[in-house]
Amino acid sequence: MSSFPSNVVIREVGLRDGLQSIQTMLPTERKIEWIGDAYAAGQREIEVGSYVPAKLLPQLADTAELVAYAKTLPGLLVSVLVPNLKGAERAIESQADLMLVPLSASHAHSLANLRKTPDEVIAEVARIRAARDSAGSKTLIEGGIGTAFGCTIQGAVDQAAVLRCMQGLLDAGADRVSIADTVGYGGPAAVRELFGKARALAGEKFWCGHFHDTRGLALANVFAALETGVARFDATLAGIGGCPHAPGASGNASSEDLAFMLADMGIATGIDIPRLLLLREKVAQWLSSETLHGALWLSGLPKTFAHASTATLNA
Amino acid sequence: MSSFPSNVVIREVGLRDGLQSIQTMLPTERKIEWIGDAYAAGQREIEVGSYVPAKLLPQLADTAELVAYAKTLPGLLVSVLVPNLKGAERAIESQADLMLVPLSASHAHSLANLRKTPDEVIAEVARIRAARDSAGSKTLIEGGIGTAFGCTIQGAVDQAAVLRCMQGLLDAGADRVSIADTVGYGGPAAVRELFGKARALAGEKFWCGHFHDTRGLALANVFAALETGVARFDATLAGIGGCPHAPGASGNASSEDLAFMLADMGIATGIDIPRLLLLREKVAQWLSSETLHGALWLSGLPKTFAHASTATLNA
Repeated sequence: MSSFPSNVVIREVGLRDGLQSIQTMLPTERKIEWIGDAYAAGQREIEVGSYVPAKLLPQLADTAELVAYAKTLPGLLVSVLVPNLKGAERAIESQADLMLVPLSASHAHSLANLRKTPDEVIAEVARIRAARDSAGSKTLIEGGIGTAFGCTIQGAVDQAAVLRCMQGLLDAGADRVSIADTVGYGGPAAVRELFGKARALAGEKFWCGHFHDTRGLALANVFAALETGVARFDATLAGIGGCPHAPGASGNASSEDLAFMLADMGIATGIDIPRLLLLREKVAQWLSSETLHGALWLSGLPKTFAHASTATLNA
Repeated sequence: MSSFPSNVVIREVGLRDGLQSIQTMLPTERKIEWIGDAYAAGQREIEVGSYVPAKLLPQLADTAELVAYAKTLPGLLVSVLVPNLKGAERAIESQADLMLVPLSASHAHSLANLRKTPDEVIAEVARIRAARDSAGSKTLIEGGIGTAFGCTIQGAVDQAAVLRCMQGLLDAGADRVSIADTVGYGGPAAVRELFGKARALAGEKFWCGHFHDTRGLALANVFAALETGVARFDATLAGIGGCPHAPGASGNASSEDLAFMLADMGIATGIDIPRLLLLREKVAQWLSSETLHGALWLSGLPKTFAHASTATLNA
């Protein structure tokens, strides 16, 4: 049986994927507090927002301000989502460390969500790469392939289509590629198969998995992905998240439950789980009218759980 | 990477592990309806109750009646829990197909829950085996090793202790052995390791895993166990369950979510998921004051989900 990566990054996407799909508008100062606390709890990669028109997603209109703040935290990799060249120009200008360009492997979902075909998104990535290079910018470009396990509009999505998109993104100049189960259609056997193929295709450039817990399989899917050597996963604190164009999709993998699973497996994440649970309590108060998810906040850590910084916190 | 079993049994333990740990007392006719509907949905192994003194668990006092009914359903393997020789004599008399004798690998939990040390339980299994054989009975004896990944009273439990108990149960004449994460302390890496060792020790006699979803890891744990070749899992409809002597333990793996995960993996369970979801709706009404669990009942099956009997149900 396969071994696991010794270190795994949990990329916090609650401020983007989470906040864009719930009703509550979180004020900028709360988001800054969230980013600061997540950093203090050991999180070192955070997707702070999205450079989309403010009229489309007013709750993410403060993304530039959040990038500016996040950039002051040493060693934090600051990501943003950009839907197109215009967004990418803002990401480059604000010196974000990474910009994620979403692509839907489902043609129907792509048209509904992005108003572009997958090939048009790939062409846009080529333009983004040219703009990045001509600006002398170091902002990494990640092509994120969504609806990779199926879609609520189109239904089935072939693995071949996902891999074709991945090759197209790499050819267009993406530095990194990732796979997302946008609507929670994937199970661990399918994940193991597709992620294995993606690793064979893209090697280390395939670096992140993004799972929604719509049918309770997010953590099983992470486990299956770990076996293929993938060592970075998107997650949202308290499992908030979803997709407005994918009805029924609700809740990313929860950051705190994922951190616990990895710690229990002996995999280092750098996260101080008790501290992350304190942040969860705070965010739960801010989002008191929302349905939150996750199990660890309710059960607490096992009596057997040893954590380096627990003593510090209790002192 | 490992292959998976082609067929897996989901053993429904909601009528025992579930109902013993919630407040609602379910009338016998409801339980009979539950068993009948579960059978109609394709479930072929059901733990219908427990032969413990009625004053200890009044909600399971009708176990003999349930065994009698369940025995009328062709091909159904009818299980009961028995804590001791006295319970085993009732199981033998009622011609249950299998009796599960619980043992706690945690010494402290064993004393608190069973008022016996693990070695005393093993000695009791030897007496049960003698009684079964001298009665000419065919009732199988399963030794179920609980708190195998740690315990809320004692804390850590060594894998060596679990395996020592397993060997003791086999030596005492248990026909089958199984492992339970009674309080949801286990993660998938630990499961893979311990279940691998248990298979090496007991071969096909190690036949069942029992996971609580206390920290959201039940399905990831099942996936890890599947990789070791184990092909039978306890689960409860709507994830009801827990352990009165293990504070914080709440909810088994949910039968319907597990059935979906296995179906998505291409593993046959014989379960008609839409029909099982109808039963879940019914049980949720009966248990309307209880906290239920699971994800599939809320999200529904994916658009891509093909199931042989869906057409029949919709017709």
